Amino acid sequence: MSRLLVLNAGSSSVKFGLYTDDLVPAEVLRGQVDGLGATAKLVVAGETTPLGRTDAEHALPVVFGALGRHLHGHRVVAVGHRIVHGGPRFAAPVVLDRAMLDVLDGFSSLAPLHQPHNLAAVRAAMAAFPEAVQVGCFDTAFHRTQPPEAERFAIPRALHDEGVRRYGFHGLSYQHIAGVLAAEHPALHAGRVIVAHLGSGASMAALRGGRSVATTMGFSALDGLPMGTRPGQIDPGVLLWLIEEKGHDAKSLTRFLYKDCGLLGVSGLSNDMRVLEASDAPEAAEAIALFAYRIRCEIGALAAALGGLDGLVFTGGIGEHSARVRAEALTGLDWLGLAVDPAANAANAREIGAGSLPVLVLPTDEEGVIAAAAAAALTS
Amino acid sequence: MSRLLVLNAGSSSVKFGLYTDDLVPAEVLRGQVDGLGATAKLVVAGETTPLGRTDAEHALPVVFGALGRHLHGHRVVAVGHRIVHGGPRFAAPVVLDRAMLDVLDGFSSLAPLHQPHNLAAVRAAMAAFPEAVQVGCFDTAFHRTQPPEAERFAIPRALHDEGVRRYGFHGLSYQHIAGVLAAEHPALHAGRVIVAHLGSGASMAALRGGRSVATTMGFSALDGLPMGTRPGQIDPGVLLWLIEEKGHDAKSLTRFLYKDCGLLGVSGLSNDMRVLEASDAPEAAEAIALFAYRIRCEIGALAAALGGLDGLVFTGGIGEHSARVRAEALTGLDWLGLAVDPAANAANAREIGAGSLPVLVLPTDEEGVIAAAAAAALTS
Repeated sequence: MSRLLVLNAGSSSVKFGLYTDDLVPAEVLRGQVDGLGATAKLVVAGETTPLGRTDAEHALPVVFGALGRHLHGHRVVAVGHRIVHGGPRFAAPVVLDRAMLDVLDGFSSLAPLHQPHNLAAVRAAMAAFPEAVQVGCFDTAFHRTQPPEAERFAIPRALHDEGVRRYGFHGLSYQHIAGVLAAEHPALHAGRVIVAHLGSGASMAALRGGRSVATTMGFSALDGLPMGTRPGQIDPGVLLWLIEEKGHDAKSLTRFLYKDCGLLGVSGLSNDMRVLEASDAPEAAEAIALFAYRIRCEIGALAAALGGLDGLVFTGGIGEHSARVRAEALTGLDWLGLAVDPAANAANAREIGAGSLPVLVLPTDEEGVIAAAAAAALTS
Repeated sequence: MSRLLVLNAGSSSVKFGLYTDDLVPAEVLRGQVDGLGATAKLVVAGETTPLGRTDAEHALPVVFGALGRHLHGHRVVAVGHRIVHGGPRFAAPVVLDRAMLDVLDGFSSLAPLHQPHNLAAVRAAMAAFPEAVQVGCFDTAFHRTQPPEAERFAIPRALHDEGVRRYGFHGLSYQHIAGVLAAEHPALHAGRVIVAHLGSGASMAALRGGRSVATTMGFSALDGLPMGTRPGQIDPGVLLWLIEEKGHDAKSLTRFLYKDCGLLGVSGLSNDMRVLEASDAPEAAEAIALFAYRIRCEIGALAAALGGLDGLVFTGGIGEHSARVRAEALTGLDWLGLAVDPAANAANAREIGAGSLPVLVLPTDEEGVIAAAAAAALTS
């Protein structure tokens, strides 16, 4: 029998899964390598194997080896890859060949910390599974339905035309949520919905009829909401000041913006929401309050982009599990029809709304979206 | 008899006015020097005098000379200055002496393009009017009532403590509008109001009970709404890309962000809204649509910060005179109670709302606020 392989290869982790090759693929195995660049470990089928100090390049052969032991004679017929950047052009998954990889290499300057890792994994998978179809699924693709004014920065046209625009990310997560809404909440799916994908990376999207009309992340994964270690929206004047007054250059500024800011920077304690929630330190409470405030303001902004609101969905690690963040984020939004039922919220229930609009908590499944795209590529 | 002098000395213009020294000062003369750094001209009491190529430093003696010819024996007893930055500390006007100027010099790195010009004008006025009280009025002061989460970026605490925070600007304009609301629309003043100060610089503020609780400009005058030549909110990743891919350094990036972006960059035509409105070019329409869209989104965000909305005020050159921008900005905000009456809007009427909430068009008067502060300093 045949299997689909899903690979989500980032700079600090590689997530993978095996699926049946049905049109709605069923997951048969899930695993991941964490801690790349430091002390890494492989977790698959409940077993943890320490890998020592290793990086993404050396972890992939280990992943393929582990997969071999779990295929039980099944053949990998398609590999679906998460690829952060599809540029201005790709609004759907693509079959990856050498020529397409060259095209996608061209977007590496748009996502220098992620795209090269994604494409290296595709090349490794081509070598390991030469007979499989390789399929690329882009984090940016879902947002290509945005109207021009949502995609444009107020910068010279030539730069926009060269690709400096608001791409948006987390598209696989939003696509999954849109699919769940279509299947299980069709009236809401047809309407105006804000989805808050809150994890160590975090963004929000405004969906009308299941299509993205606006999102908080822009050109890079730095914009919009504060994140574990990223600032989200920040005055460009702050960057000028850091260069002029603190002697930052592009490299140190990149490190600062991706690693030193966000919940970690504000709290001075941790980038992990669970740690902050467990802390009594006022700095932890300030970091959570800032995160919630910025979500609240973005709800208002996205509702304006949508021309009104019919419902809200929380997803992602924090969105699915932090009752406190959900409650603080919706504080004072009664005027918009948004409020949480304390008991349902505390229980991480699927429906937690206590206002006039539904508020849902839905698990995301980016790997499932990739598996479905791989299955579709086999039949097309 | 005595006079108050108001000085608003920027990098490209010096505006000035003479007022009676009443508790509510009356304007008796208004003038300005435009085109500093290029071909400048003095306009006072309806007469234009070409000054040739001159800068702010050399224009001030010309201004003081012109004032001498219009004082008609009156004595200048106080000079009120517009000063862009009052840092984290100053929430009200201050009397300026040498020691205070040293304190304010310390904020020059926060507003390097404006603060030095402002303070040079204070020093020149001290020399020209040695017996007058010098009073500094800060663009940032009005926003010192913001709650902590509105003032904080998601950056390391040490940088926040060092002064990297969301100060907000255009405070003198917001203070004038709050005063007009208190006097003429007391119920609205007591409630939740968004004020859109739209000029070649543009920002918006959320007022509750006449006090600022949030504003779109942050650390510098670059953040928030697109402006004539500034981008407003922009992904920090764009700046990293411009450094890495285009070889920008701090100096060229500063020039780019302050001079090449905004309406000018998007339209490729002009930074002047009147020129764009008169143009048939699709690029002009795109620039206006982007400006309106971003105002619309900020209305949603600020309404969320306010916990609901009771009314909206347009002010500033564009806010007071562009029916098209007002109409486009409020398109699709009926759900919030905001809509414009086409006839009233076209006439730049004081009340233009057609939804459930009042929409006002009010002229701003930053110089009047400064004159009142100067008068108050004389009696305190």
